[in-house]
Amino acid sequence: MAPKPVQTAAETPSGDPKHAARATRSAGRQMRSRLLDAASRLFRERGLAGASISDIAAAADAFPSQITYYFRTKEALFVEAACRDMLYVARAAEQATLRVHTPRDYTRALVESVTATDSVAFFAEALTLTRRRQDLAPLVERTIERLHGEGLRAYSNQIERHGWNTLRDPDATSRRFWAVAIGVMVEGYAMGRSAEELCAEMLRVLGEQATTTPAAARLRVVDHGVSNSSDGETSS
Amino acid sequence: MAPKPVQTAAETPSGDPKHAARATRSAGRQMRSRLLDAASRLFRERGLAGASISDIAAAADAFPSQITYYFRTKEALFVEAACRDMLYVARAAEQATLRVHTPRDYTRALVESVTATDSVAFFAEALTLTRRRQDLAPLVERTIERLHGEGLRAYSNQIERHGWNTLRDPDATSRRFWAVAIGVMVEGYAMGRSAEELCAEMLRVLGEQATTTPAAARLRVVDHGVSNSSDGETSS
Repeated sequence: MAPKPVQTAAETPSGDPKHAARATRSAGRQMRSRLLDAASRLFRERGLAGASISDIAAAADAFPSQITYYFRTKEALFVEAACRDMLYVARAAEQATLRVHTPRDYTRALVESVTATDSVAFFAEALTLTRRRQDLAPLVERTIERLHGEGLRAYSNQIERHGWNTLRDPDATSRRFWAVAIGVMVEGYAMGRSAEELCAEMLRVLGEQATTTPAAARLRVVDHGVSNSSDGETSS
Repeated sequence: MAPKPVQTAAETPSGDPKHAARATRSAGRQMRSRLLDAASRLFRERGLAGASISDIAAAADAFPSQITYYFRTKEALFVEAACRDMLYVARAAEQATLRVHTPRDYTRALVESVTATDSVAFFAEALTLTRRRQDLAPLVERTIERLHGEGLRAYSNQIERHGWNTLRDPDATSRRFWAVAIGVMVEGYAMGRSAEELCAEMLRVLGEQATTTPAAARLRVVDHGVSNSSDGETSS
């Protein structure tokens, strides 16, 4: 990809209208970002109904009119904050797997990362809201596409890098990961589960890649490729 | 378990206070059930915010005070209606599998059954609500326990009956099924997906759950207790 053209200081005197427009855009981006930060914090604590536009504006040191200017409605702000946080979680999960060497550690690193915060539950709340607000569906759809696309890319890279044998189509594996994450979190948060319990349940439900004690399980899974090899490691 | 004592007609003349109490209880159950039916219909159409207590009472030909008498709050009515419907869906899904002969048809029958209605999405909405209303968590918890327990029983029965090879621990398989159902439905309803699209996505995400031909599978599941016995039946 070609690098972006760099403008020198001489080309951008402070009186240049282009510079002023850029400065405005940049200030706008900062304000947007600050509003999303405050919204994320308050919505996670209190839910959609528990946080008002004026609460969020106050927390971001802004005016309520700035929220309606940038986001139009509280619901749109809720969904955008949740979508942004979900993509952050996906990136953090990917980062958490960079140093792992086995499929089991890989799955555990991913699951620990996504169960450490309530971002997936926040996102699930945004999905539930969007069902009744189809005007917000395009943002949700783009987020889910990115989630699946980036998940597929990250998983495929790991498989290739380590020479692992994936148990099935990597795209389905990545989609399953997020569907299970949403399902387990929605169930678990309703029942007031701790992060440790959510992590254990998600590992259990995801399966294969995370089987820890085959001897204790009623069923033992034997990978024919590995069971004949000398290292004796069971499954993956 | 000892059978319930049966009262003869002679013991229960219509003037008997016990009979009157039973009649009242029965009328109460009928009213409760009618209110749940109306609530389910209106909440599915309009969501929690879109249906008021008086709308629901009117639809059930009842008084708003009867809703608060039986359920206390609109949120409790929402959660109870959604939990009841979720258990109905689980039962319908089980019924749908009674005539299948292969693991693939079994999974397809289950998935077609649960994606044919919006009951799972309704239940997911109740779960999301319960996160902020932990007083309602016990009902949700009982529902999820029944869902997993009945799912495990139904799946184990099928495996035993057909002599299928389950690809993994049946309990985890059943829990995964419902976690995936919730995750896929929450995502899909947000994006306005059709029942056919939800069904295809759920099948894709679930993958294979059991096989008839272990040789064809990459993983073979061995039940240690049974694999040494002479009948050769796999697992239960």
